[in-house]
Amino acid sequence: MASKIRLEDRECPLSTTLGVVGEWWTVLILHDCFDGYSRFDEFEANIGLSSSMLTSRLKSLVEAGILERKPYQERPVRYEYALTDLGRSLRPVLVSLAAWRNAQLAPQERSMILVDSRTGREVEPVVVDAATGDRVDGTQYVYAAGPSAGDAMRKRYEGVANTHVEART
Amino acid sequence: MASKIRLEDRECPLSTTLGVVGEWWTVLILHDCFDGYSRFDEFEANIGLSSSMLTSRLKSLVEAGILERKPYQERPVRYEYALTDLGRSLRPVLVSLAAWRNAQLAPQERSMILVDSRTGREVEPVVVDAATGDRVDGTQYVYAAGPSAGDAMRKRYEGVANTHVEART
Repeated sequence: MASKIRLEDRECPLSTTLGVVGEWWTVLILHDCFDGYSRFDEFEANIGLSSSMLTSRLKSLVEAGILERKPYQERPVRYEYALTDLGRSLRPVLVSLAAWRNAQLAPQERSMILVDSRTGREVEPVVVDAATGDRVDGTQYVYAAGPSAGDAMRKRYEGVANTHVEART
Repeated sequence: MASKIRLEDRECPLSTTLGVVGEWWTVLILHDCFDGYSRFDEFEANIGLSSSMLTSRLKSLVEAGILERKPYQERPVRYEYALTDLGRSLRPVLVSLAAWRNAQLAPQERSMILVDSRTGREVEPVVVDAATGDRVDGTQYVYAAGPSAGDAMRKRYEGVANTHVEART
């Protein structure tokens, strides 16, 4: 049964995102794109993924509107892959993934760091509420059923809301 | 060759994180845990994963130090799974994943939203530099080789640094 579930069909936004980036290789390709790489041979060399797997992953990313494939050379025609606006909007996902690991390492133990390119200063990325600037990893920030939640989602969060309220009082 | 690469062995922090959470099902289990669910039968009902797959995923999460397995009942003994501090620190990753999808939907189209439980107000999660509060998805924030980068990582970011500098001037 598990293999028949199409995560994209579920109404959970987390599942929908995972339907697009829920593959290690896909995230590594996006990492390359964000770092300025765009060509098939660059991805192949950096990621160590077989040519057929890489072809298939790039195709999925183009179909999902994350990457755009465009010619950069005629005779023979050669294509490169560029992030679309939708693809660029995945940046916080990649930053959060890398930040989790780096947070377990002392600064001098880190191999790859996020820096402000104007100053070279290392940046510590945190997720905050855009309205208040408060960090959203505190327990007062919880998921809840949204306006278009179906029955299953409402049921899921009825119980959770009670649990959270009890835990907090 | 691709199948022989152990991503955990790579020095990239993104790959290391993916070595732990780079599986759809794993992220869905963590989502359940953050929402207050803790028992095997709850995960099974919520996620729709087969019992053997779920057992294996939970075991990996316990081994990775993300979840802790502890008895909640004697005779017969029953176990529940709780997030460790390390597991809890994955919260920004899940929040970023869900936020990406929700950002493509109008507020009234959303099925699952992050709210401030004190007020019920929906929160828009953004990733910022902890020191300045500036959003880090702008192009001035780039990855660079860190203090313990090996040759491959240094080489990767030598080229990228130049690209970025050229693109920006």
